[in-house]
Amino acid sequence: MHIICDQKKLLKSITTVLKGISSKSTMPVLEGIYMEAKDNHVKFIATDLELGIETTIETQVIEEGVMVLNARLLNEITRKLPGSQVEMRIKEDGKVFIKCEQSEFDLVSYETEEYPELPQVEKDQIAKIPRGLLKNMIEQTTFAVSQDESRLILTGGLLEIEDTTLSMVALDGYRLALRKGEIKGSQDHKVVIPGKTLNEVGRIIDEDLETELQILFTDSHILFDLGNTKVISRLLEGQFIDYKQILPDEHRVAVEVSRQSLLHSIERASLLAKEGNNRLVKFKIEDHQLHISSNSEHGQVHEQIGIDQQGDDLEIAFNAKYLIDALKVIEEDEVKFLFTSNVSPGIITSTDNNHYTYLVLPVRLSNN
Amino acid sequence: MHIICDQKKLLKSITTVLKGISSKSTMPVLEGIYMEAKDNHVKFIATDLELGIETTIETQVIEEGVMVLNARLLNEITRKLPGSQVEMRIKEDGKVFIKCEQSEFDLVSYETEEYPELPQVEKDQIAKIPRGLLKNMIEQTTFAVSQDESRLILTGGLLEIEDTTLSMVALDGYRLALRKGEIKGSQDHKVVIPGKTLNEVGRIIDEDLETELQILFTDSHILFDLGNTKVISRLLEGQFIDYKQILPDEHRVAVEVSRQSLLHSIERASLLAKEGNNRLVKFKIEDHQLHISSNSEHGQVHEQIGIDQQGDDLEIAFNAKYLIDALKVIEEDEVKFLFTSNVSPGIITSTDNNHYTYLVLPVRLSNN
Repeated sequence: MHIICDQKKLLKSITTVLKGISSKSTMPVLEGIYMEAKDNHVKFIATDLELGIETTIETQVIEEGVMVLNARLLNEITRKLPGSQVEMRIKEDGKVFIKCEQSEFDLVSYETEEYPELPQVEKDQIAKIPRGLLKNMIEQTTFAVSQDESRLILTGGLLEIEDTTLSMVALDGYRLALRKGEIKGSQDHKVVIPGKTLNEVGRIIDEDLETELQILFTDSHILFDLGNTKVISRLLEGQFIDYKQILPDEHRVAVEVSRQSLLHSIERASLLAKEGNNRLVKFKIEDHQLHISSNSEHGQVHEQIGIDQQGDDLEIAFNAKYLIDALKVIEEDEVKFLFTSNVSPGIITSTDNNHYTYLVLPVRLSNN
Repeated sequence: MHIICDQKKLLKSITTVLKGISSKSTMPVLEGIYMEAKDNHVKFIATDLELGIETTIETQVIEEGVMVLNARLLNEITRKLPGSQVEMRIKEDGKVFIKCEQSEFDLVSYETEEYPELPQVEKDQIAKIPRGLLKNMIEQTTFAVSQDESRLILTGGLLEIEDTTLSMVALDGYRLALRKGEIKGSQDHKVVIPGKTLNEVGRIIDEDLETELQILFTDSHILFDLGNTKVISRLLEGQFIDYKQILPDEHRVAVEVSRQSLLHSIERASLLAKEGNNRLVKFKIEDHQLHISSNSEHGQVHEQIGIDQQGDDLEIAFNAKYLIDALKVIEEDEVKFLFTSNVSPGIITSTDNNHYTYLVLPVRLSNN
């Protein structure tokens, strides 16, 4: 293998696949990035066997071939190279020679035969989704996946296609995030994608947000095809919770409020509730005012926001973190907060559309 | 106590004194910032008993008094306040009421009587130094103070005034950094200032670099007076090493080289030398070329830089970190590297002036 490559393109490819490397891999070769030069293209692959990321660039290939170089080292070296033109070549002794201006490296390649092949995903089950929409759906839901490995299925997000409706759902037993979108018709699908995969796909989608990407399905795998870059991942096996049963269809109190004001008030209130896991903030809804309060041994805080209130007065308490997570990812300026009672879930939606639904369980106060 | 204060001024004062708070304090009251309102000024103090930082702002004082509020909490609250005008007032129940628009806090004050007084430093021993010069001297030397608490005196920097010459020296047994400057005449002084104090003074000097600050001395303490802000610190007791005896006055090889080129080459070479504490890079000086090389189980690297060489050829090895530390803080474009043999210290200076001298011990190679 012998290539000439632009330093910026090389670095971009390395950083794209780098998150496919697991820090706790048991196979040394998986600490490496697989590079394959062929037909004036170089393909870069990194995988931890659950998730694989592959990206291809066009560049000058003088001799075809493959190599596997330590990912961390290759990343740091490429980042610090002194010029724009980089030569990489396998020498007769098997070492990889990298040259850029007066800077020369001889690196040891892992055994290329030991590098596992990424699973093949056939092209017969395809959905097409605008990149920006998918990125948005991931950002608005994935933070709510469960971190508890004892219910593995909930550490993933549900992707559901029903005719032209696309839904993504994540839940962890305390809150549920649902984002809906519209796509051109596709076959129905219902798969659960690991949270880590979704985060990586969200990160990789960083340009051409208006164009579509393809999603390919098999029974066990999903492939996100962004053209030059592909992400392939195992699916989580098992039955996701029937989330539609959880969403209440009635409410007794509706509050409309500025998202930024609500977010900042809760953030301030939570400063005094920081001790312990349960950052409790209390809401009191009364006379078109929302009172938010919290206290600890350091003192107490009281915040007041003018709201548009429909229905009864109410006192209810939440874990501040769960509210902050959702209010940060909603894009609209105004949000609607719906309640039934102080022991039933609250629902946060946008006032502009019904794309986003966030359900959060209240914390029962001892004097309820 | 009852004051009205601008949020930005309040936050600036808090962040200025915040580094005076130690994370491992045994006295709870030292987790607090002492605030004293008097004559339309508020003074903020934080100390860990070794180091004290005090800053004063002018603001509306409705009622004079003192309070001590948890530093971390006060910092976070002030940072997130919704408006510019902040009211702080001690209520009848002793709690501190903070109000900013619709946001209200009631905080518990520590017992103000428990707060220790900062040591008094008399004004009879004074030196005047341009702020920018002191900041520069600190940045170019303090990184070299010893981290080894078993020789406490070396964890500080030596500040020496001899007539109009000001010197700052730090050393740790492997390298020595010396920065000289010129000041107007002053009494002679020779004190050792804790590295932490020097770092804080360097951080706090961030404007009016052309104006002078005053340094006040006692036998046990030093006070840096920047006008509104003062830093007072204990001095380290004992005899500093006679650094002038360490500096060689001859050399057999002199190399002039671009500082940036040398820095970047060493940084790249050190990527392959990262394993272990001793990030060894080898220099070979020959025919007006500097060859830098390094190797590990991942491979090897070779860098070449054109130099202006005077004297013999030489092979010598260094710990890359010690070279990088110094090359990062030198401001000139060209540096001079002086050598005597491959078992004697190397000296880095600027080619423009003799303000800065950095001495670094070589690493003996097994084949020397």
